[in-house]
Amino acid sequence: MSDGEPKVNVDGVPYRTIWCDEQGTVHAIDQRLLPFRFKVMRIDSLVAMAEAISTMAVRGAGLIGAATGYGMHLAAREAADRPSGQGTDLVAAAALLKATRPTAVNLAWAVRRQLQVLADIEDPQLRAAAARAEADAIADEDADSCRRIGEHGLGLLRQLHETTGRTVNVLTHCNAGWLAFVDHGTATAPIYAAHDAGIPVHVWVDETRPRNQGARLTAWELAQHGVPHTVVADNAGGHLMQRGQVDVVLVGSDRTTADGDVANKIGTYLKALAAQDTGVPFYAALPSSTIDWTMTDGVRSTPIEERDGREVTHMEGVGPDGSLIEVRLTPVSSPAANPGFDVTPGRLVTGLITEAGICAASAAGLAAQHPDLAGGS
Amino acid sequence: MSDGEPKVNVDGVPYRTIWCDEQGTVHAIDQRLLPFRFKVMRIDSLVAMAEAISTMAVRGAGLIGAATGYGMHLAAREAADRPSGQGTDLVAAAALLKATRPTAVNLAWAVRRQLQVLADIEDPQLRAAAARAEADAIADEDADSCRRIGEHGLGLLRQLHETTGRTVNVLTHCNAGWLAFVDHGTATAPIYAAHDAGIPVHVWVDETRPRNQGARLTAWELAQHGVPHTVVADNAGGHLMQRGQVDVVLVGSDRTTADGDVANKIGTYLKALAAQDTGVPFYAALPSSTIDWTMTDGVRSTPIEERDGREVTHMEGVGPDGSLIEVRLTPVSSPAANPGFDVTPGRLVTGLITEAGICAASAAGLAAQHPDLAGGS
Repeated sequence: MSDGEPKVNVDGVPYRTIWCDEQGTVHAIDQRLLPFRFKVMRIDSLVAMAEAISTMAVRGAGLIGAATGYGMHLAAREAADRPSGQGTDLVAAAALLKATRPTAVNLAWAVRRQLQVLADIEDPQLRAAAARAEADAIADEDADSCRRIGEHGLGLLRQLHETTGRTVNVLTHCNAGWLAFVDHGTATAPIYAAHDAGIPVHVWVDETRPRNQGARLTAWELAQHGVPHTVVADNAGGHLMQRGQVDVVLVGSDRTTADGDVANKIGTYLKALAAQDTGVPFYAALPSSTIDWTMTDGVRSTPIEERDGREVTHMEGVGPDGSLIEVRLTPVSSPAANPGFDVTPGRLVTGLITEAGICAASAAGLAAQHPDLAGGS
Repeated sequence: MSDGEPKVNVDGVPYRTIWCDEQGTVHAIDQRLLPFRFKVMRIDSLVAMAEAISTMAVRGAGLIGAATGYGMHLAAREAADRPSGQGTDLVAAAALLKATRPTAVNLAWAVRRQLQVLADIEDPQLRAAAARAEADAIADEDADSCRRIGEHGLGLLRQLHETTGRTVNVLTHCNAGWLAFVDHGTATAPIYAAHDAGIPVHVWVDETRPRNQGARLTAWELAQHGVPHTVVADNAGGHLMQRGQVDVVLVGSDRTTADGDVANKIGTYLKALAAQDTGVPFYAALPSSTIDWTMTDGVRSTPIEERDGREVTHMEGVGPDGSLIEVRLTPVSSPAANPGFDVTPGRLVTGLITEAGICAASAAGLAAQHPDLAGGS
């Protein structure tokens, strides 16, 4: 399933966002330090993996799925290493992992997939080996899905370029990039594919407050790959669209309902409204693992993660002396609220780009594109 | 015209944002340091006033108008203090002031008003005295207009409270508060009036990147006045509206076209779109001095200020040691763009609140409410 060598280079060295070595220890890029420091962290216990996910050291739809897969591998390994009856309970491990981030659907999806594989294996050593293999498969499939998303999206960008005869201006929100998946990314996959195919592309990178995934991660990724881009405040996108400076909006999705509503980083809905108002096409790119086939009416149903208000009142950056520091932005007496996601109704989405192709953001569109998955979980 | 004692207290002391002492020196609150430090700056030359406006030490629609009025007073005083023929040219002074901020219409309005008054006065001393008096009148009228806006808007908030029987949740963007005017503010005037009248009000304060006028200025103002409020990232407003947590959006305007399009801080358009999509009323509050009767089709016509990208890539706040410092948020190699305003088409605006009342955001609505002003400048 894997397409071999990682696609993306960091200072010339090819990397995936997460991988497992021969001893079964997991390694992942610590995304809390980017773009200021590039550091790979060792994750060698279930608890450490849960911590890495909840603190957003690893984050992003696909990467959360892969990390969860590896979290179950670590749990199975811990179970195998201990005397019978004292090992880590895999059901408890599943619950621990699922509690880390409430909106991301890949988490529950990866847990379910591991539990299905492991349920029938009695021997702890065999079970640990199977968990490792399944985790690798989840990661490889994520990378492969993203590669295919890039191929499908490439056609869109090529068409826009051929229509206008000039650089294609893409606006993206948050980081649905290589860093949010195992490789390639979703929203970025068509951008990388177009750039590599010689189609001139420029990306408006939404800063993405409060955690600045755009300003920190997407900008860094695009810079590493040499893709022209400009960071803007989240407030700017509507104006850019009004002035004809955006040809297409490409975002990711953390959970897509069976009828095509897209839960993605807070603020995505506002960009979809502006795209509709100005006639700019708006696509969400996602592996089918992100689709929640059990849910409809995402605006009403999707659980939205409420994060710490401190992410709004404080911000981290590089100070005058080059050190990473946090500054307070607000009066001490002013509280803050911090919903992490919003839901863009399918009616505002021009299309969904999955590994299987491009389809309408509707129950009919998704069911036709994924007949094997629709109608059950 | 003045309603006497300033409305708003800072640590218990009543203040206006700008005032002129008996010697003709202008004093203004330095808004670059709030909420971290409260400092009053002396402005005693035309050049210093132009600098204060362009660096946004003084900012906001009405305050820019008042500051411009006082800038012309300082220019006329400089002209009177110098030998004949060597004084500051008032037309050059007008040009200098008008170049400081391209979107704000109160700037040109105040300059025009001063030039009309001063054109027929030959004697430099009399001219300086007239410029001082006119500047005071502009400031007093701004405060009075804002007070009246508060009275008209109070009815709206009272009605919302009576309909729902609970706290009225207002969302506001940027700072169209007391600090943006001479007193009261525009978007905040109904909030202060309602709060003082015992109507329970809670304000969602958009952070307002990149300069954080919401997180810094509006939050500080509301805290000083004891109005319950919560700071949110600019991305959050659409989600809050989808979940029924916003009863009304109140914003200001830096330039309103004769047909009701509203140029306001970048990102306002996105909130107006969300308000329309979710059925939340959206009002812009503005003194009629902010209306550009010579302009229509604001999306196409309004000049939009492009500010330094450094406001996006860097942010100022209070560091761990209590000092005010700036941190870098983005990779060094990533450029940024920084449009300062966007235009909300009148079709998205439920109504305009001016000193004369509430009217439709249309040519007919504005002309009917301001028959003395419409049709000419």
